[in-house]
Amino acid sequence: MTDHIYAGIDLGGTKILVLIADDNGKVIGDTRIPTEAALGVDGVINRIVEATKDAVQEAGVELPAVRAIGVSAPGPIDTVKGIITDPPNLHGWHNVPLARILQERLDAPAILENDANCQGLAEHEYGAGRGFRHMVFVTASTGIGGGIIIDNELYVGASGAAGEIGHLVVASEGPTCGAGHIGCLEAMASGTAIARDAAALIAQGQLVRTARIAEHNPPLDAADVFRASQEGETEAGALITRAGRYLGTGLASIINAFNPQAIIIGGGLINMGDAIMAPAIEVARDRSFGQSFNDVQIIESELGDRAGALGAIAVARKKVAAGAM
Amino acid sequence: MTDHIYAGIDLGGTKILVLIADDNGKVIGDTRIPTEAALGVDGVINRIVEATKDAVQEAGVELPAVRAIGVSAPGPIDTVKGIITDPPNLHGWHNVPLARILQERLDAPAILENDANCQGLAEHEYGAGRGFRHMVFVTASTGIGGGIIIDNELYVGASGAAGEIGHLVVASEGPTCGAGHIGCLEAMASGTAIARDAAALIAQGQLVRTARIAEHNPPLDAADVFRASQEGETEAGALITRAGRYLGTGLASIINAFNPQAIIIGGGLINMGDAIMAPAIEVARDRSFGQSFNDVQIIESELGDRAGALGAIAVARKKVAAGAM
Repeated sequence: MTDHIYAGIDLGGTKILVLIADDNGKVIGDTRIPTEAALGVDGVINRIVEATKDAVQEAGVELPAVRAIGVSAPGPIDTVKGIITDPPNLHGWHNVPLARILQERLDAPAILENDANCQGLAEHEYGAGRGFRHMVFVTASTGIGGGIIIDNELYVGASGAAGEIGHLVVASEGPTCGAGHIGCLEAMASGTAIARDAAALIAQGQLVRTARIAEHNPPLDAADVFRASQEGETEAGALITRAGRYLGTGLASIINAFNPQAIIIGGGLINMGDAIMAPAIEVARDRSFGQSFNDVQIIESELGDRAGALGAIAVARKKVAAGAM
Repeated sequence: MTDHIYAGIDLGGTKILVLIADDNGKVIGDTRIPTEAALGVDGVINRIVEATKDAVQEAGVELPAVRAIGVSAPGPIDTVKGIITDPPNLHGWHNVPLARILQERLDAPAILENDANCQGLAEHEYGAGRGFRHMVFVTASTGIGGGIIIDNELYVGASGAAGEIGHLVVASEGPTCGAGHIGCLEAMASGTAIARDAAALIAQGQLVRTARIAEHNPPLDAADVFRASQEGETEAGALITRAGRYLGTGLASIINAFNPQAIIIGGGLINMGDAIMAPAIEVARDRSFGQSFNDVQIIESELGDRAGALGAIAVARKKVAAGAM
């Protein structure tokens, strides 16, 4: 039994994961439940509270032992005030002061952080990014997010919004991302971008195999396009290559601006392996300075879907260690 | 008379500027001479040494009072070893260990830093960037460079090469910059890019007024294009607007990645005023997150062509203060 434990809550659109760690960061409790976002704000908050209590119990401790709570939440959020402002994948959530609510319900101080920032910090503290003083985490799935570590600390910028790697501009013209930005990395290289471009080709009668795969498991997504390409559909493969090349322009910008020791890449698109990463690395090499490219290690993330909750624990522990919570 | 003075040397392709500062950073000596790069490495180094001795004398002190020397030098340089590796605007300089040579000739420790990094640090310490904890400096002239300040310190990355803002990728296809990168900010928005695009149009019989202005003062440069646009040549104005829009995509990437409190913009293109900055700011607003855009002040640099030498002094003073020199 330990005196100080930390709760890390990963609030996602489909799942809530709560991890409990002791004072050394060792995980001693683990509860995972569906978000059931349709329950609305109050219903989901009840589920967060219950899952946290369950995880604390599993850890063999009592609620008062919780020193602090970190929450990995989908952006945009106001990290200073602890408010979830307007997340696209949590319908009905507008300006929810989640940090204050959890503090009241669980009787421990709570802090919110952007999910990709939490994942990046977790990879730095516990995963593939250990030992890199300056690193950039990139997660590429339906969206593209990032987290920046500078001098071994999460860099959050002037108002907590830094690290929006998915919104590096990589094309002067082009479609928009969900946030309305033209030609950003997310608009050009995300899973959503791949599916959008595939749907357009299917509407023109192309990508027959992709269409057939998607029909069996709708809606059409990037994994369908990848599977079709593996089954020999050349045009499907071209879409993956194209996304990979755009991803590479984003990596080049990261290398030229940050000169990091490592870029840690996670997210579902990484499951496509060399199909997406080979063109990405080729373009990153072509468009970055040779020395900076040689200095950077591009590595796959290690922590999978536990990264958000682990990072939330790290955020809470660091805040307490700094005497700020 | 002060016990500790600092020399800041700005080594440029056309001029050498040496500033001497006292322990409080106050400038007490100032010597400016042409580089005469055609003299070659040894000849230019002799000029640097003589200019430094002159500036020290002007400051009313003796050479032994110099505590440390900072040098603002054109990249690429190896800041760790103090070597100028291969600067495009100093012909014949290859792997010159300038820090060691100056230390031997002037009997004080010397440190090299990239010129745009020096300028950015100077704006933060003494200029338009004072008081901003996180800021990005961008200089747009024939090339585009940058310097990143994080937590009030120059951020140089894993191996001293961070801050290459001119090589953020802003176009998926396009011409290359001098370093061979396709579609980077420097390839699309620099003075060199504007002149290149103007020359192509002139070769097609367009931009008659620009061509006439350039004939009187060759070679054709971005200032000629700007002057023609002010005299009513619409197509010349369109080139400036286009460069401004690309500059804006670069600013959007900076805002989304760094969430800085300020972006300080310097360099010759700023003299074009709203012609280039209005489209830049419009695009930066459109392509960045609203809160992050609202949080950033975009401000003109203050220090002009003294920024490099002032920044070199700041680099040297900080190195001494850290006990590292």
